Amino acid sequence: MIVALAGGVGGGRMATGLAAVLPPRGLAIVVNTGDDFEHLGLHVSPDLDSVLYALAGVDNRETGWGRAGETWNFMEALRGLGGEAWFRLGDRDLAVHVLRTRLLARGIPLSGVTRMLARRLGVRHAIVPMSETPVRTRVRTGRGTLAFQDYFVKLGCRPRVRGFRFQGGRAARVPQALRRLLRPGRIHAVVICPSNPYVSVAPILSVPTIRAWLESRSFPVVGVSPIVGGAAVKGPAAKIMRELGAEPSALGVARHYGGQVDGWVIDRKDAGLARAIAEEGKAVLVTDTIMSDREKSAALGRRVVAFALSLAEKQD
Amino acid sequence: MIVALAGGVGGGRMATGLAAVLPPRGLAIVVNTGDDFEHLGLHVSPDLDSVLYALAGVDNRETGWGRAGETWNFMEALRGLGGEAWFRLGDRDLAVHVLRTRLLARGIPLSGVTRMLARRLGVRHAIVPMSETPVRTRVRTGRGTLAFQDYFVKLGCRPRVRGFRFQGGRAARVPQALRRLLRPGRIHAVVICPSNPYVSVAPILSVPTIRAWLESRSFPVVGVSPIVGGAAVKGPAAKIMRELGAEPSALGVARHYGGQVDGWVIDRKDAGLARAIAEEGKAVLVTDTIMSDREKSAALGRRVVAFALSLAEKQD
Repeated sequence: MIVALAGGVGGGRMATGLAAVLPPRGLAIVVNTGDDFEHLGLHVSPDLDSVLYALAGVDNRETGWGRAGETWNFMEALRGLGGEAWFRLGDRDLAVHVLRTRLLARGIPLSGVTRMLARRLGVRHAIVPMSETPVRTRVRTGRGTLAFQDYFVKLGCRPRVRGFRFQGGRAARVPQALRRLLRPGRIHAVVICPSNPYVSVAPILSVPTIRAWLESRSFPVVGVSPIVGGAAVKGPAAKIMRELGAEPSALGVARHYGGQVDGWVIDRKDAGLARAIAEEGKAVLVTDTIMSDREKSAALGRRVVAFALSLAEKQD
Repeated sequence: MIVALAGGVGGGRMATGLAAVLPPRGLAIVVNTGDDFEHLGLHVSPDLDSVLYALAGVDNRETGWGRAGETWNFMEALRGLGGEAWFRLGDRDLAVHVLRTRLLARGIPLSGVTRMLARRLGVRHAIVPMSETPVRTRVRTGRGTLAFQDYFVKLGCRPRVRGFRFQGGRAARVPQALRRLLRPGRIHAVVICPSNPYVSVAPILSVPTIRAWLESRSFPVVGVSPIVGGAAVKGPAAKIMRELGAEPSALGVARHYGGQVDGWVIDRKDAGLARAIAEEGKAVLVTDTIMSDREKSAALGRRVVAFALSLAEKQD
């Protein structure tokens, strides 16, 4: 059994690759909920949806978020009525938000709602939110502390970042299904997907139960670098690293995680950094990491699983 | 100043006709909210929307409800997810429900929300909900008492009707804007639109403030028959009349309203009933009442206004 820690696009693509290799009972994807928010009265879970849509094969490959073949008539009508239109909700996507909000209002926990949605979309691998209770990423910037989506979407990541806070992280209630996975001996390896280390993975690691479990681990943690050739594959990871004084490179990422990760998967473009990462005491796999289609996701999934299991064997 | 009492389709079409004749300050349309309901966590006001869309010129003429040029991708996705799909919400229509629900949640009264939506849609005539507080039509049937939309949409009006109850009607809080109109001397005439007498107009008349105002009136009330040639122009009015032992005809409608209406506008098809209605002590105008396009709505609006004002002059 492998557990993947996932954010949005990179999380969805890596999850698809892992799911192509591992059977449903051999993979659980723990997803960031730090950028969940209430919008227009709806509970929106962007990263859960990215992973859900990717695994269901209905993800929009062009935008990197939302559903394939989407239409925008709700949004256009809402804009016409003077409603808030800065966060784009597609007509099909909206059905998930409305249904999730309804089910949560009925008292079903977020993990149960996610399970129901996944089943309806034909997803067989487990998608588990990192917390049943709200954890909200707050961004400390030159313009004050911002709610995550205000920073990320409304302000297009323009404000200079000074740090992050995960409100509710310490009090997060881990889903029962995840709690079971965290029992000793259940997991062979953890894969940290090529998601933003600061806003996708850090919120997951801020949950004390998850952090404690990783700190006392007897299995390897393998990370796939979200930085390739000094730039983020998608999103503001490199910009944030620079603003926080870190080197925006696969090496910078490895140093950022430090002892939390045992082995790094880096792109061929970054082969020159392999030695420096190895000198940090890490196993390194150099390979093609850009998941531009499902086949490439599956190929990377295969190599990441093999790498992780090889590290697990060495630990035994 | 003329006040129109309106339900859904017939209300919207008559309102359009009256608005084509009367200036914005010369017409207020008081709309039934008895079939409002909470659906998928959204506050849905079908009759307010029918009147709103009709006056904005964005109504769907084919269905008789919802918006023109509508798409159904939200609904289709919701059905795919196992969500409730019996009440059809179009993608564009949904924007109104989401926005109304948001504004109500912020504490803005329904009349204020309606005013904002109308302004955004470019509607200049006043659309006023009959009540700020919930009034909910309950249908007593052979299958027990049903919520209105369960009877109307989910069960397609099939259950045999035994009667109606307007829950919250007695405690209804009339909007301030309507309260001002009800002051003595403000109104020249009231027009009852060709809406269902039992489920569209009766809820409005169940509001004590409105009923008392009409009972002590010094202006004429003119009704446009929703029954033409023994059948409802649209909807279950004739079926309900039969089930309640009333004659489904323009005469039956006139008898149903009794002293609440002073003059009747009936269709040429029903010219043979004019004498019987006159014998009930009513003024009668026989004309074309089928509003199959906007021009016909406007033509009927002109005749209805002239008829109402002629009755007002006689009363003076």
